[in-house]
Amino acid sequence: MFMKALRFESGRLAIAEIPKPHVAEEAVVRVMLSGICNTDLEIIRDYNGFEGTLGHEFVGVVESAPALSLVGRRVVGEINAGCGRCALCAVGDPRHCSSRTVLGIVGRDGAHAEFLSLPVINLLPVPDDVPDERAVFCEPLAAALGITERVRVTKETRVAVIGDGKLGLLCAQAMALTSSHVLLVGRHHEKLRIAATRGIETATEDRIKRRSGDFDVAVEASGNESGFELALNLLRPRGVLVLKSTFHGATRINAARIVVDEITVTGSRCGRFEPALDLLQKGAVDVESLISEEYALAQGLRAMKRATEKGIVKVLLRP
Amino acid sequence: MFMKALRFESGRLAIAEIPKPHVAEEAVVRVMLSGICNTDLEIIRDYNGFEGTLGHEFVGVVESAPALSLVGRRVVGEINAGCGRCALCAVGDPRHCSSRTVLGIVGRDGAHAEFLSLPVINLLPVPDDVPDERAVFCEPLAAALGITERVRVTKETRVAVIGDGKLGLLCAQAMALTSSHVLLVGRHHEKLRIAATRGIETATEDRIKRRSGDFDVAVEASGNESGFELALNLLRPRGVLVLKSTFHGATRINAARIVVDEITVTGSRCGRFEPALDLLQKGAVDVESLISEEYALAQGLRAMKRATEKGIVKVLLRP
Repeated sequence: MFMKALRFESGRLAIAEIPKPHVAEEAVVRVMLSGICNTDLEIIRDYNGFEGTLGHEFVGVVESAPALSLVGRRVVGEINAGCGRCALCAVGDPRHCSSRTVLGIVGRDGAHAEFLSLPVINLLPVPDDVPDERAVFCEPLAAALGITERVRVTKETRVAVIGDGKLGLLCAQAMALTSSHVLLVGRHHEKLRIAATRGIETATEDRIKRRSGDFDVAVEASGNESGFELALNLLRPRGVLVLKSTFHGATRINAARIVVDEITVTGSRCGRFEPALDLLQKGAVDVESLISEEYALAQGLRAMKRATEKGIVKVLLRP
Repeated sequence: MFMKALRFESGRLAIAEIPKPHVAEEAVVRVMLSGICNTDLEIIRDYNGFEGTLGHEFVGVVESAPALSLVGRRVVGEINAGCGRCALCAVGDPRHCSSRTVLGIVGRDGAHAEFLSLPVINLLPVPDDVPDERAVFCEPLAAALGITERVRVTKETRVAVIGDGKLGLLCAQAMALTSSHVLLVGRHHEKLRIAATRGIETATEDRIKRRSGDFDVAVEASGNESGFELALNLLRPRGVLVLKSTFHGATRINAARIVVDEITVTGSRCGRFEPALDLLQKGAVDVESLISEEYALAQGLRAMKRATEKGIVKVLLRP
């Protein structure tokens, strides 16, 4: 049995026909929708040496599984698959298992394909009233919510989110669930408008210089070195900069500012799916507005190119 | 009344004769001993634009003060002088007051002089059984202890300190007061030996590559970009890198490592004097072994040069 997949191999991106996955102890999921993430775009710039099928945001239907009760269920899936034996896996958190594979990122074929496989423990059934177009955002929304695992955010915390791309728009909404003082900083009026519609304060980069030192927390979600610098400038002494974007290569930072003002810089990667799915079911976060375009998987190359273009937020693929 | 002072002005370091300080609402302290810090050396590389008398580590005797009970007392002094009115000053912590001056660092003449002035509130009497040669280390020891204000350290915390200079040697000892697993990493056998004598494990940089990922906390006290990279490599996922050295200029960091492994980088500057003075009184930290040489203030230029040379730890000045 063969299937279509969007693959990056030997420095080349292509739609390929490859064998359908078959892993005895894992579930096989027929992908309904997958989402293109900036990490996919970083990988094809050779960010981490990954080769294989791209994609880690998906919703699909279980076709086969060791746990028969899952067969036929619509699911989303945690992307980190741990060894199952180390101390981290033992407490149910394989996100930092040193032997982990990561769907479409590290040592495991991803979701931009007709089928994928994941351990049963990674799968989470999707309630019937959550449409595919919403469920496919579970992974990036979980990642945005993961910020609160790294820094305490209360109603009073003044939070600036830098970057009005798909990640920044989710982070701003995630922060606004707790904080009453969220500012989203970006470069694109039409993207900022999506957040403004949800009652979030927005500003373009050139308008916020005067707010230096005003924020307790700054979330860098632009993936640009200039975003990092801006985030640093917005923080008060002892403020916390959350690095959310996976950058390529080295970044120049003002270490003296970090020492003198005792700034904390903390990385944040993956979050937990359950609270994200719960919020998607409640409609507490607007994800549909982030969908710019949808392509058939066969048009994956064109979709990847579109995902890099100005004005585009989330691009989905349908196998 | 004139006095000698070691000053940095218009890009030039010199011993100058300047008026003795006289600030109506402050105490005037006759300096007994002052210590040369790497920050002094950074300032004369134009680290922060400071001009004036250098020096912020001292012990001295109060010559005049609005609080008469202090006159004649031997004192050390907190180096941050706040506005006294903002929220931070109101709770007794002017270290991040935005209007602060800092002794010998920001807007206030320093301690490499015959006299200095500081607000009375900054001064702490030194117990009689703490000799000058020990008391003069109160400020840098407080800074080393300040690490525990930025990251939780317990007996079980595995801590690596990078840098075997005067700051690294104090940080390693400060960490070893709490943690049973401190490793000091350096380049100089004779400096590492000072820590080893106190029962602290030591290693040269080339011997610890294999310990990547072994540490919960890494303290960067070398002031080198390579020290930052090494510290990052030694940390486990979700580990904490404490930036203790004030660097000059921009530093290149591997932001992807910070995000993927959810590392926290946190700056640490000044600490609290009381616990430091208490430890110096108890002899819980060995500071005398760090004294390499002592010079008369008049020989300040030579002393500053010596402080940059290989094998030298702490250089003291005696007015």
